[in-house]
Amino acid sequence: MIGSTQAFERTLVVAPHPDDEVLGAGGTMAALTQAGCSVFVAVVTTGKAPDFDMRQVTTVREECARAHEKLGVRETLWLDQPAARLSEVAHVELNAALSGVVDAVRPGALVLPFVGDIHMDHQLTFLSGLVAARPHGPKFPPLVLAYETLSETNWNAPYLSPSFQPNYFVDISSTIDLKLDAMAAFSSQVRSFPHERSIEALEALAVMRGVTVGCAAAEAFVLLRNVINFELA
Amino acid sequence: MIGSTQAFERTLVVAPHPDDEVLGAGGTMAALTQAGCSVFVAVVTTGKAPDFDMRQVTTVREECARAHEKLGVRETLWLDQPAARLSEVAHVELNAALSGVVDAVRPGALVLPFVGDIHMDHQLTFLSGLVAARPHGPKFPPLVLAYETLSETNWNAPYLSPSFQPNYFVDISSTIDLKLDAMAAFSSQVRSFPHERSIEALEALAVMRGVTVGCAAAEAFVLLRNVINFELA
Amino acid sequence: MIGSTQAFERTLVVAPHPDDEVLGAGGTMAALTQAGCSVFVAVVTTGKAPDFDMRQVTTVREECARAHEKLGVRETLWLDQPAARLSEVAHVELNAALSGVVDAVRPGALVLPFVGDIHMDHQLTFLSGLVAARPHGPKFPPLVLAYETLSETNWNAPYLSPSFQPNYFVDISSTIDLKLDAMAAFSSQVRSFPHERSIEALEALAVMRGVTVGCAAAEAFVLLRNVINFELA
Amino acid sequence: MIGSTQAFERTLVVAPHPDDEVLGAGGTMAALTQAGCSVFVAVVTTGKAPDFDMRQVTTVREECARAHEKLGVRETLWLDQPAARLSEVAHVELNAALSGVVDAVRPGALVLPFVGDIHMDHQLTFLSGLVAARPHGPKFPPLVLAYETLSETNWNAPYLSPSFQPNYFVDISSTIDLKLDAMAAFSSQVRSFPHERSIEALEALAVMRGVTVGCAAAEAFVLLRNVINFELA
Amino acid sequence: MIGSTQAFERTLVVAPHPDDEVLGAGGTMAALTQAGCSVFVAVVTTGKAPDFDMRQVTTVREECARAHEKLGVRETLWLDQPAARLSEVAHVELNAALSGVVDAVRPGALVLPFVGDIHMDHQLTFLSGLVAARPHGPKFPPLVLAYETLSETNWNAPYLSPSFQPNYFVDISSTIDLKLDAMAAFSSQVRSFPHERSIEALEALAVMRGVTVGCAAAEAFVLLRNVINFELA
Amino acid sequence: MIGSTQAFERTLVVAPHPDDEVLGAGGTMAALTQAGCSVFVAVVTTGKAPDFDMRQVTTVREECARAHEKLGVRETLWLDQPAARLSEVAHVELNAALSGVVDAVRPGALVLPFVGDIHMDHQLTFLSGLVAARPHGPKFPPLVLAYETLSETNWNAPYLSPSFQPNYFVDISSTIDLKLDAMAAFSSQVRSFPHERSIEALEALAVMRGVTVGCAAAEAFVLLRNVINFELA
Repeated sequence: MIGSTQAFERTLVVAPHPDDEVLGAGGTMAALTQAGCSVFVAVVTTGKAPDFDMRQVTTVREECARAHEKLGVRETLWLDQPAARLSEVAHVELNAALSGVVDAVRPGALVLPFVGDIHMDHQLTFLSGLVAARPHGPKFPPLVLAYETLSETNWNAPYLSPSFQPNYFVDISSTIDLKLDAMAAFSSQVRSFPHERSIEALEALAVMRGVTVGCAAAEAFVLLRNVINFELA
Repeated sequence: MIGSTQAFERTLVVAPHPDDEVLGAGGTMAALTQAGCSVFVAVVTTGKAPDFDMRQVTTVREECARAHEKLGVRETLWLDQPAARLSEVAHVELNAALSGVVDAVRPGALVLPFVGDIHMDHQLTFLSGLVAARPHGPKFPPLVLAYETLSETNWNAPYLSPSFQPNYFVDISSTIDLKLDAMAAFSSQVRSFPHERSIEALEALAVMRGVTVGCAAAEAFVLLRNVINFELA
Repeated sequence: MIGSTQAFERTLVVAPHPDDEVLGAGGTMAALTQAGCSVFVAVVTTGKAPDFDMRQVTTVREECARAHEKLGVRETLWLDQPAARLSEVAHVELNAALSGVVDAVRPGALVLPFVGDIHMDHQLTFLSGLVAARPHGPKFPPLVLAYETLSETNWNAPYLSPSFQPNYFVDISSTIDLKLDAMAAFSSQVRSFPHERSIEALEALAVMRGVTVGCAAAEAFVLLRNVINFELA
Repeated sequence: MIGSTQAFERTLVVAPHPDDEVLGAGGTMAALTQAGCSVFVAVVTTGKAPDFDMRQVTTVREECARAHEKLGVRETLWLDQPAARLSEVAHVELNAALSGVVDAVRPGALVLPFVGDIHMDHQLTFLSGLVAARPHGPKFPPLVLAYETLSETNWNAPYLSPSFQPNYFVDISSTIDLKLDAMAAFSSQVRSFPHERSIEALEALAVMRGVTVGCAAAEAFVLLRNVINFELA
Repeated sequence: MIGSTQAFERTLVVAPHPDDEVLGAGGTMAALTQAGCSVFVAVVTTGKAPDFDMRQVTTVREECARAHEKLGVRETLWLDQPAARLSEVAHVELNAALSGVVDAVRPGALVLPFVGDIHMDHQLTFLSGLVAARPHGPKFPPLVLAYETLSETNWNAPYLSPSFQPNYFVDISSTIDLKLDAMAAFSSQVRSFPHERSIEALEALAVMRGVTVGCAAAEAFVLLRNVINFELA
Repeated sequence: MIGSTQAFERTLVVAPHPDDEVLGAGGTMAALTQAGCSVFVAVVTTGKAPDFDMRQVTTVREECARAHEKLGVRETLWLDQPAARLSEVAHVELNAALSGVVDAVRPGALVLPFVGDIHMDHQLTFLSGLVAARPHGPKFPPLVLAYETLSETNWNAPYLSPSFQPNYFVDISSTIDLKLDAMAAFSSQVRSFPHERSIEALEALAVMRGVTVGCAAAEAFVLLRNVINFELA
């Protein structure tokens, strides 16, 4: 059976910037690795001088390594596009970068940032990710999801931007602590409550998404495409 | 100035069933009464035999009285329509009931349940509330908002039902405790975590809505209509 | 693991009228029964005199039995509501009927008609089906899908009715013949090409849905809710 | 050629209440009759005692006759359903009433009120009108449009009700005076400016819709369905 | 009468890449030329080295010439923008290119690719095409339509990208063979079934769009704007 | 109290090009300055050679000065980005330009052009304006609105572009004359009726928006975000 949750056996989470993948899917990643699945992360951008302080860039990369270790990530792939300037990268180049990583990993499940996030890097990553996942050829990912990101998804324009209305929930009751722990590893990125990018906010979000489907903590996603074949079990 | 937050000086919150008004706007109601505004609540339905146990109906009404006292509600109006059976009431009759209470209270701010809630009583209350607020004649409410209700708003169909995308936030950092206290007064209605209708869920929702706009707790609304006249100050 | 395709092990397909379930999900049903899953069908309405000719009602029921036998349906449940008059049934009663069958079958996957279909019986069946599937309590279905129905889904109002934008596809390459065969069993319901309710139309739809995801025939669905727990494997 | 503007040669405008057809399509009706086309109006409801004063009902019917005479309406058909209480009429009965008039007139163009209007009579008339126009059988109308109604279309819920986003415009520069004249004939229904149902409002709307497409006055519609066959010229 | 199907007498179909116009509107083009109308095609992009193999570019252009000959296209205009890199062309330049061709052809009907297609070249062509068709000045096209493209329109994000919900259908029962023949002329572009860009898929789509409106084959469009003046007959 | 109409005490209106601010919010600006509030205007772009004639650019700037004087604008800030070529400016640079002016003015109310306008300069100004208004840090604007612009908002794609469905209205009955006067000051920009950018069109729009909420003239807005704190009175 393909296109089922077996699709998760090889999962690729795409992060526009380091920490987005933890904010959106950290608990799911931990649950998957605990269940024996392989989780890959592709980080699309890197901060470049002079926009970014290189020491800070190094710090974030170290934080990211620690976070991914906690979550059991098998491999982190750095696409090295310019942070905050994805709109200056030719669309075909970004498509090629994303297609390259999809071809290299051949995931069953592809997990993207959300097209309605206020950050244009997120929007463009989504669009090129969807191009990379086009359902033709022998090996497209049968499951494509989009995650939400605190301080991005809620700050776009109500009723005018594409809206995040989750239809896919993963119970992370047993991995929420790992998720918060991984996020705490990004100490340079975490903000103090009541900022949206605080540990308290992340916990409240997990509770809210959880109670919506009757569990103590969950991560919520929008399904883009799921292709099922009951014969390929 | 009309149509401003001065509109809140006389606020009418409409609840399809007792406790909806607390779930959706309890913190705002407390903040308003503390600021000297008059808050009215119209409860649209009452449980009727044999659908409902009359002792339970009496219990809920007593719980409601205690909750409203905590929040400083000036007056609670009971429209006495049949609970869970609003769709069996003639549409003109429900319109008349809502118009009657709007005419009696003459609110500056009218606060309705959300049309996208899964419970049809909520949908029909919204529709008739909007009819009652039509912007003609000398005294229509210049501000109309819709609130969200745990275990109703999140359980409807993503991308198919009208979606709650909040654009109006009230900081309830200093009244969140009163709100939770008022909800706790509905002890027959509160469920244990991780049910959506638990105190913990209500608190997580307040945090989530708060951090979205940089405060520790908030209630979120969708604006239906706001009419401003800068001369009528 | 729950909420996965294992959810399909016990599948309940809800049909407003006999044949809707075949039009929308016949190939999936056949694939499921071939894979050893249990498929139940709930038929919501029955034609009643004088609206319907009783001989015709009997005929359809016999056709339905033959169709379900071809597809391997384990059990067909008749809810016996009045056909074409669901809007005259009290909403709570229809909710109760749907909740009753969900409680009796306890499906992992619940498959509903689409809320945007032009036939009000379809819309109301969807709404009550979603109420019956509310995600609380110990045993709600972790997977809820909506199917499309020829001569209903395409005939509603573009951009005004809820739109069917499929995100969930089941490969029915190996069961499309069974599906067409089952539909042909409804000889009183099938129309001649180029009517939408013709065998040729059903085949073209299967091809169109298939090629969209790279297979020769598919059925397409809109996902309403999927809840996954990787621990419950 | 069918499905073209030749479809207008036999046009049926459906009005939930007398005067809706003039507000929404009066200028188009006048332009059509001047061009030699046949325009029929179906008025769905009639005010009934005790909801309505029978003298007022008679007055409106007389006003309607005068207005239709000015516009050159060929025939006015009264469906005699209860005004403001269409939601109490069985859905199949309203379908039958609309299908009856469509079958009797066999229009090429069917012009309906808008599903997003705040008045439920408008919504239900639209829904049953669309059922009556289902594109099967030998004689369905190849062109279906929806018009806007002052004091109905603008008063529904922004971003939550179906929205009127016009894509079809008829230049009424040479018939706007006739339209305003016909509306003035409904002296019992016209309100004083600045009410939405005033002559001044109707004129401003015509100007707004006109300038959007470069003419001095227009009526705007939403296209529901247009079927073209270039061979049937 | 302008703005009617007479608008089709001079029709301009815009193709981001050669073959899009055939996939989306080939049957309509053939029907129009058979009815004596003039059909122009503007091909927006050309493959450029090193992105594209120049022999392949030459091949496609020859295939295009053969296809257009089959369909009776009066003139093919090549705008020669860089294929797959329209997002690197300044927006004003693309606007100018589209406005130039609209000014040169002065079409009554302008037929564009769809803004919700997954290929950014399609989206940008649509946007600049709509700018070129702005309804002011003496000679804007009174009819603007958007067509669907296999392997583009169905592969974008459900509920997040603009959705193709057709409201305008052209019966191509008598020209479907010509359409398939024209598409077959693009032998370098056609893929084997079950790829979306196969002849079988194109035929199934024509059947599906046809049966929706009761004919054996149709092409479906979304109406952007239609301006009618009954006096200009 | 913050986030109330007190937010208007310091209002920043953002215009992609000079005159957009008058078309969309001129009457509100006049009403605010008459009420003693401070109104700032940021003009994002300037025409540059060779796209624009420098004498015309100088003329428009003088017209703008006269218009702003009529309306009582306290200060006009020129961001000097290239007109009609905002899409060629790096997104981070436009963000920085908008954030700079928001930081400098620290408005309570931020009034932006609409994201669904057909002109890409409008869309990009909206997006960067929303980034500049992100609700974190000590001083974000508690009220963010979007205005409509004749010849931009109505010319985008119905049901495909973000739609302007106003929920926020300002009564400009007493300042409509000032608004029309200010627009007339842009004599190089005003077009003759029936162009959308004519004085007559602007007046008709004010009447239409007014009657929708029962006053003689109004400006309509879409609310993006309003944050209220009843304690900060």
